[in-house]
Amino acid sequence: MREKPLFDVKFSSTGTCVGKLRNEVTIKAIEPFQTVNTLATDEGKFQGGEGTAPTPLEFFLTGLVGCLMTQMRVFSRRMKIKVDDVVVTCDAHWEAYAGEGFPYEGQPVGFAVDIDVRSPEHETRILELVNASRKGCFVEQTIERKTRIDHRVRVNAQSWAEV
Amino acid sequence: MREKPLFDVKFSSTGTCVGKLRNEVTIKAIEPFQTVNTLATDEGKFQGGEGTAPTPLEFFLTGLVGCLMTQMRVFSRRMKIKVDDVVVTCDAHWEAYAGEGFPYEGQPVGFAVDIDVRSPEHETRILELVNASRKGCFVEQTIERKTRIDHRVRVNAQSWAEV
Repeated sequence: MREKPLFDVKFSSTGTCVGKLRNEVTIKAIEPFQTVNTLATDEGKFQGGEGTAPTPLEFFLTGLVGCLMTQMRVFSRRMKIKVDDVVVTCDAHWEAYAGEGFPYEGQPVGFAVDIDVRSPEHETRILELVNASRKGCFVEQTIERKTRIDHRVRVNAQSWAEV
Repeated sequence: MREKPLFDVKFSSTGTCVGKLRNEVTIKAIEPFQTVNTLATDEGKFQGGEGTAPTPLEFFLTGLVGCLMTQMRVFSRRMKIKVDDVVVTCDAHWEAYAGEGFPYEGQPVGFAVDIDVRSPEHETRILELVNASRKGCFVEQTIERKTRIDHRVRVNAQSWAEV
Protein backbone atom coordinates (compact mmCIF):
# COMPACT_ATOMS: atom_id res chain seq x y z
CA MET A 1 0.00 0.00 0.00
CA ARG A 2 1.22 3.46 -0.86
CA GLU A 3 2.46 5.55 2.08
CA LYS A 4 0.59 8.73 2.99
CA PRO A 5 2.08 11.98 1.63
CA LEU A 6 3.72 14.34 4.14
CA PHE A 7 1.82 17.19 2.51
CA ASP A 8 -0.09 18.10 -0.66
CA VAL A 9 0.64 21.07 -2.91
CA LYS A 10 -2.37 22.44 -4.80
CA PHE A 11 -2.73 25.50 -6.99
CA SER A 12 -5.52 26.72 -9.25
CA SER A 13 -4.55 29.17 -12.01
CA THR A 14 -6.76 31.11 -14.41
CA GLY A 15 -5.47 32.92 -17.48
CA THR A 16 -7.38 35.56 -19.42
CA CYS A 17 -6.60 37.24 -22.76
CA VAL A 18 -5.61 40.91 -22.55
CA GLY A 19 -4.11 42.85 -25.46
CA LYS A 20 -2.76 41.23 -28.65
CA LEU A 21 -0.93 38.31 -27.01
CA ARG A 22 -0.75 39.43 -23.38
CA ASN A 23 -2.19 36.96 -20.87
CA GLU A 24 -2.92 37.69 -17.24
CA VAL A 25 -2.68 34.61 -15.04
CA THR A 26 -4.07 34.62 -11.50
CA ILE A 27 -2.59 31.85 -9.38
CA LYS A 28 -4.35 30.79 -6.22
CA ALA A 29 -2.36 28.67 -3.76
CA ILE A 30 -4.73 26.25 -2.00
CA GLU A 31 -2.35 23.94 -0.08
CA PRO A 32 -0.09 24.01 1.99
CA PHE A 33 -0.45 27.82 2.12
CA GLN A 34 -2.98 30.29 0.73
CA THR A 35 -2.02 33.23 -1.49
CA VAL A 36 -3.29 34.88 -4.67
CA ASN A 37 -0.90 36.41 -7.23
CA THR A 38 -1.38 37.71 -10.76
CA LEU A 39 1.44 37.48 -13.31
CA ALA A 40 1.35 38.68 -16.93
CA THR A 41 2.98 37.09 -19.99
CA ASP A 42 3.38 38.58 -23.45
CA GLU A 43 5.32 37.89 -26.64
CA GLY A 44 7.66 40.06 -28.64
CA LYS A 45 7.23 40.98 -32.29
CA PHE A 46 8.52 37.56 -33.43
CA GLN A 47 5.17 36.06 -32.36
CA GLY A 48 2.98 39.15 -32.92
CA GLY A 49 2.93 40.43 -29.34
CA GLU A 50 3.67 43.81 -27.81
CA GLY A 51 6.48 42.90 -25.37
CA THR A 52 4.66 44.24 -22.28
CA ALA A 53 5.83 41.29 -20.12
CA PRO A 54 8.27 38.34 -20.30
CA THR A 55 7.27 35.34 -22.42
CA PRO A 56 5.72 32.17 -20.94
CA LEU A 57 9.00 30.26 -21.41
CA GLU A 58 10.81 32.81 -19.24
CA PHE A 59 8.26 32.19 -16.47
CA PHE A 60 8.65 28.44 -16.93
CA LEU A 61 12.47 28.66 -16.67
CA THR A 62 12.29 30.96 -13.66
CA GLY A 63 10.08 28.32 -12.04
CA LEU A 64 12.65 25.61 -12.77
CA VAL A 65 15.74 27.55 -11.62
CA GLY A 66 13.96 29.15 -8.65
CA CYS A 67 12.46 25.86 -7.41
CA LEU A 68 15.81 24.04 -7.44
CA MET A 69 17.55 26.96 -5.69
CA THR A 70 14.86 27.20 -3.03
CA GLN A 71 15.05 23.47 -2.42
CA MET A 72 18.84 23.66 -2.01
CA ARG A 73 18.58 26.51 0.47
CA VAL A 74 15.78 24.90 2.49
CA PHE A 75 17.32 21.42 2.45
CA SER A 76 20.82 22.74 3.35
CA ARG A 77 19.39 24.00 6.64
CA ARG A 78 17.36 20.89 7.30
CA MET A 79 20.22 18.52 6.38
CA LYS A 80 22.79 20.67 8.25
CA ILE A 81 25.00 21.07 5.16
CA LYS A 82 26.42 24.58 5.26
CA VAL A 83 26.16 26.49 1.99
CA ASP A 84 27.40 30.10 1.72
CA ASP A 85 26.18 30.81 -1.80
CA VAL A 86 24.63 29.12 -4.85
CA VAL A 87 24.44 30.28 -8.45
CA VAL A 88 22.35 28.12 -10.81
CA THR A 89 22.61 28.40 -14.58
CA CYS A 90 20.18 26.61 -16.90
CA ASP A 91 20.65 26.32 -20.65
CA ALA A 92 17.38 25.29 -22.24
CA HIS A 93 16.85 24.14 -25.82
CA TRP A 94 13.68 23.32 -27.74
CA GLU A 95 13.06 22.66 -31.45
CA ALA A 96 9.99 23.39 -33.55
CA TYR A 97 9.13 21.02 -36.41
CA ALA A 98 6.63 21.58 -39.24
CA GLY A 99 3.20 20.25 -38.22
CA GLU A 100 0.82 18.43 -40.58
CA GLY A 101 -2.06 20.86 -41.04
CA PHE A 102 -0.89 23.20 -38.26
CA PRO A 103 2.01 25.64 -37.92
CA TYR A 104 4.55 23.68 -35.84
CA GLU A 105 5.17 21.12 -33.16
CA GLY A 106 7.40 21.97 -30.18
CA GLN A 107 9.87 19.45 -28.73
CA PRO A 108 12.26 19.75 -25.81
CA VAL A 109 15.89 18.94 -26.69
CA GLY A 110 17.20 19.19 -23.15
CA PHE A 111 18.16 21.22 -20.13
CA ALA A 112 21.70 21.63 -18.80
CA VAL A 113 21.82 22.87 -15.21
CA ASP A 114 25.12 24.03 -13.65
CA ILE A 115 25.13 24.46 -9.87
CA ASP A 116 28.00 26.61 -8.60
CA VAL A 117 28.29 26.31 -4.81
CA ARG A 118 30.41 28.12 -2.24
CA SER A 119 30.66 26.05 0.93
CA PRO A 120 33.06 24.91 3.68
CA GLU A 121 31.68 21.34 3.30
CA HIS A 122 33.35 18.43 1.46
CA GLU A 123 32.16 17.94 -2.15
CA THR A 124 30.51 14.62 -1.19
CA ARG A 125 28.12 16.42 1.14
CA ILE A 126 27.29 18.99 -1.53
CA LEU A 127 26.51 16.25 -4.08
CA GLU A 128 24.27 14.68 -1.43
CA LEU A 129 22.49 18.01 -1.02
CA VAL A 130 22.09 18.47 -4.79
CA ASN A 131 20.66 14.99 -5.26
CA ALA A 132 18.22 15.49 -2.38
CA SER A 133 17.21 18.91 -3.74
CA ARG A 134 16.53 17.47 -7.20
CA LYS A 135 14.19 14.92 -5.61
CA GLY A 136 12.53 17.64 -3.53
CA CYS A 137 12.13 20.01 -6.48
CA PHE A 138 8.54 19.76 -7.71
CA VAL A 139 9.41 21.33 -11.06
CA GLU A 140 12.32 18.98 -11.84
CA GLN A 141 10.22 15.97 -10.87
CA THR A 142 7.45 17.17 -13.18
CA ILE A 143 9.80 17.66 -16.14
CA GLU A 144 11.86 14.50 -15.69
CA ARG A 145 8.83 12.22 -15.38
CA LYS A 146 6.18 11.63 -18.03
CA THR A 147 3.46 13.76 -16.43
CA ARG A 148 -0.12 13.69 -17.62
CA ILE A 149 -2.08 16.85 -18.43
CA ASP A 150 -5.83 16.28 -18.83
CA HIS A 151 -7.76 18.74 -20.99
CA ARG A 152 -11.40 19.71 -21.34
CA VAL A 153 -12.77 22.19 -23.85
CA ARG A 154 -16.04 24.13 -23.85
CA VAL A 155 -17.29 26.32 -26.69
CA ASN A 156 -19.76 29.16 -26.02
CA ALA A 157 -20.66 27.85 -22.55
CA GLN A 158 -21.99 24.53 -23.96
CA SER A 159 -20.97 21.22 -22.33
CA TRP A 160 -17.34 20.28 -21.63
CA ALA A 161 -15.65 17.89 -24.06
CA GLU A 162 -12.56 15.86 -23.09
CA VAL A 163 -9.67 16.13 -25.55
CA MET B 1 17.00 10.76 -41.23
CA ARG B 2 15.44 13.32 -38.93
CA GLU B 3 13.92 16.36 -40.64
CA LYS B 4 15.45 19.75 -39.99
CA PRO B 5 13.70 21.91 -37.35
CA LEU B 6 11.79 24.97 -38.55
CA PHE B 7 13.44 26.94 -35.76
CA ASP B 8 15.33 26.49 -32.49
CA VAL B 9 14.40 28.04 -29.15
CA LYS B 10 17.31 28.67 -26.78
CA PHE B 11 17.44 30.43 -23.42
CA SER B 12 20.15 30.74 -20.80
CA SER B 13 19.01 31.58 -17.25
CA THR B 14 21.09 32.41 -14.19
CA GLY B 15 19.69 32.50 -10.67
CA THR B 16 21.40 34.14 -7.70
CA CYS B 17 20.54 34.05 -3.97
CA VAL B 18 19.23 37.31 -2.52
CA GLY B 19 17.62 37.58 0.93
CA LYS B 20 16.50 34.60 3.00
CA LEU B 21 14.89 32.57 0.18
CA ARG B 22 14.54 35.18 -2.56
CA ASN B 23 16.14 34.24 -5.88
CA GLU B 24 16.73 36.61 -8.77
CA VAL B 25 16.72 34.86 -12.13
CA THR B 26 18.03 36.60 -15.25
CA ILE B 27 16.78 34.96 -18.43
CA LYS B 28 18.55 35.63 -21.69
CA ALA B 29 16.71 34.67 -24.88
CA ILE B 30 19.24 33.54 -27.49
CA GLU B 31 17.04 32.13 -30.31
CA PRO B 32 14.74 32.93 -32.18
CA PHE B 33 14.75 36.40 -30.56
CA GLN B 34 17.07 38.18 -28.12
CA THR B 35 15.90 39.70 -24.84
CA VAL B 36 17.07 39.84 -21.23
CA ASN B 37 14.62 39.83 -18.31
CA THR B 38 15.04 39.41 -14.57
CA LEU B 39 12.32 37.81 -12.46
CA ALA B 40 12.37 37.23 -8.70
CA THR B 41 10.96 34.30 -6.72
CA ASP B 42 10.51 34.00 -2.98
CA GLU B 43 8.73 31.79 -0.48
CA GLY B 44 6.23 32.57 2.23
CA LYS B 45 6.65 31.79 5.91
CA PHE B 46 5.71 28.13 5.34
CA GLN B 47 9.16 27.59 3.79
CA GLY B 48 11.06 30.27 5.74
CA GLY B 49 10.92 33.03 3.12
CA GLU B 50 9.82 36.65 3.28
CA GLY B 51 7.06 36.69 0.63
CA THR B 52 8.70 39.44 -1.49
CA ALA B 53 7.75 37.70 -4.77
CA PRO B 54 5.60 34.78 -5.98
CA THR B 55 6.92 31.24 -5.43
CA PRO B 56 8.71 29.24 -8.16
CA LEU B 57 5.64 27.03 -8.67
CA GLU B 58 3.56 30.11 -9.49
CA PHE B 59 6.08 31.05 -12.19
CA PHE B 60 6.04 27.49 -13.48
CA LEU B 61 2.23 27.45 -13.70
CA THR B 62 2.13 30.89 -15.34
CA GLY B 63 4.52 29.48 -17.93
CA LEU B 64 2.23 26.51 -18.57
CA VAL B 65 -1.04 28.46 -18.77
CA GLY B 66 0.50 31.38 -20.67
CA CYS B 67 2.28 29.17 -23.22
CA LEU B 68 -0.88 27.22 -24.09
CA MET B 69 -2.94 30.45 -24.37
CA THR B 70 -0.33 32.12 -26.58
CA GLN B 71 -0.19 29.07 -28.80
CA MET B 72 -4.00 29.07 -29.18
CA ARG B 73 -4.05 32.74 -30.10
CA VAL B 74 -1.15 32.48 -32.56
CA PHE B 75 -2.38 29.23 -34.14
CA SER B 76 -6.00 30.50 -34.42
CA ARG B 77 -4.76 33.23 -36.75
CA ARG B 78 -2.48 30.97 -38.72
CA MET B 79 -5.09 28.17 -39.03
CA LYS B 80 -7.88 30.70 -39.77
CA ILE B 81 -10.04 29.44 -36.88
CA LYS B 82 -11.79 32.47 -35.41
CA VAL B 83 -11.62 32.71 -31.61
CA ASP B 84 -13.21 35.67 -29.77
CA ASP B 85 -11.96 34.83 -26.29
CA VAL B 86 -10.19 32.09 -24.30
CA VAL B 87 -10.02 31.52 -20.55
CA VAL B 88 -7.71 28.73 -19.40
CA THR B 89 -7.90 27.23 -15.90
CA CYS B 90 -5.28 24.82 -14.59
CA ASP B 91 -5.64 22.83 -11.39
CA ALA B 92 -2.23 21.49 -10.36
CA HIS B 93 -1.52 18.90 -7.69
CA TRP B 94 1.76 17.59 -6.29
CA GLU B 95 2.50 15.38 -3.27
CA ALA B 96 5.55 15.36 -0.99
CA TYR B 97 6.68 12.05 0.50
CA ALA B 98 9.18 11.50 3.31
CA GLY B 99 12.69 11.07 1.87
CA GLU B 100 15.29 8.62 3.22
CA GLY B 101 17.93 10.85 4.78
CA PHE B 102 16.50 14.06 3.34
CA PRO B 103 13.37 16.12 4.11
CA TYR B 104 10.96 15.08 1.29
CA GLU B 105 10.54 13.97 -2.28
CA GLY B 106 8.16 15.85 -4.59
CA GLN B 107 5.92 14.06 -7.07
CA PRO B 108 3.44 15.44 -9.59
CA VAL B 109 -0.06 13.99 -9.25
CA GLY B 110 -1.50 15.68 -12.31
CA PHE B 111 -2.69 18.77 -14.11
CA ALA B 112 -6.29 19.41 -15.19
CA VAL B 113 -6.60 22.12 -17.82
CA ASP B 114 -10.01 23.55 -18.78
CA ILE B 115 -10.16 25.66 -21.94
CA ASP B 116 -13.22 27.87 -22.16
CA VAL B 117 -13.58 29.29 -25.67
CA ARG B 118 -15.91 31.87 -27.19
CA SER B 119 -16.04 31.43 -30.96
CA PRO B 120 -18.40 31.45 -33.99
CA GLU B 121 -16.70 28.24 -35.24
CA HIS B 122 -18.03 24.67 -34.96
CA GLU B 123 -16.73 22.71 -31.92
CA THR B 124 -14.80 20.35 -34.26
CA ARG B 125 -12.64 23.21 -35.48
CA ILE B 126 -11.98 24.37 -31.90
CA LEU B 127 -10.92 20.86 -30.86
CA GLU B 128 -8.58 20.86 -33.88
CA LEU B 129 -7.13 24.17 -32.69
CA VAL B 130 -6.68 22.91 -29.11
CA ASN B 131 -4.93 19.74 -30.25
CA ALA B 132 -2.60 21.71 -32.53
CA SER B 133 -1.88 24.22 -29.74
CA ARG B 134 -0.99 21.44 -27.30
CA LYS B 135 1.52 20.11 -29.83
CA GLY B 136 2.89 23.61 -30.41
CA CYS B 137 3.13 24.42 -26.69
CA PHE B 138 6.75 23.98 -25.62
CA VAL B 139 5.81 23.77 -21.95
CA GLU B 140 3.13 21.06 -22.39
CA GLN B 141 5.48 19.02 -24.57
CA THR B 142 8.20 19.30 -21.91
CA ILE B 143 5.88 18.18 -19.10
CA GLU B 144 4.09 15.39 -20.98
CA ARG B 145 7.33 13.77 -22.21
CA LYS B 146 10.08 12.29 -20.04
CA THR B 147 12.55 15.16 -20.46
CA ARG B 148 16.14 14.89 -19.36
CA ILE B 149 17.82 17.50 -17.15
CA ASP B 150 21.62 17.17 -16.99
CA HIS B 151 23.37 18.55 -13.91
CA ARG B 152 26.90 19.57 -13.07
CA VAL B 153 28.09 20.77 -9.67
CA ARG B 154 31.15 22.78 -8.72
CA VAL B 155 32.27 23.57 -5.17
CA ASN B 156 34.47 26.61 -4.41
CA ALA B 157 35.41 27.10 -8.09
CA GLN B 158 37.06 23.63 -8.31
CA SER B 159 36.32 21.34 -11.28
CA TRP B 160 32.78 20.49 -12.41
CA ALA B 161 31.35 17.11 -11.36
CA GLU B 162 28.44 15.47 -13.21
CA VAL B 163 25.57 14.32 -10.98
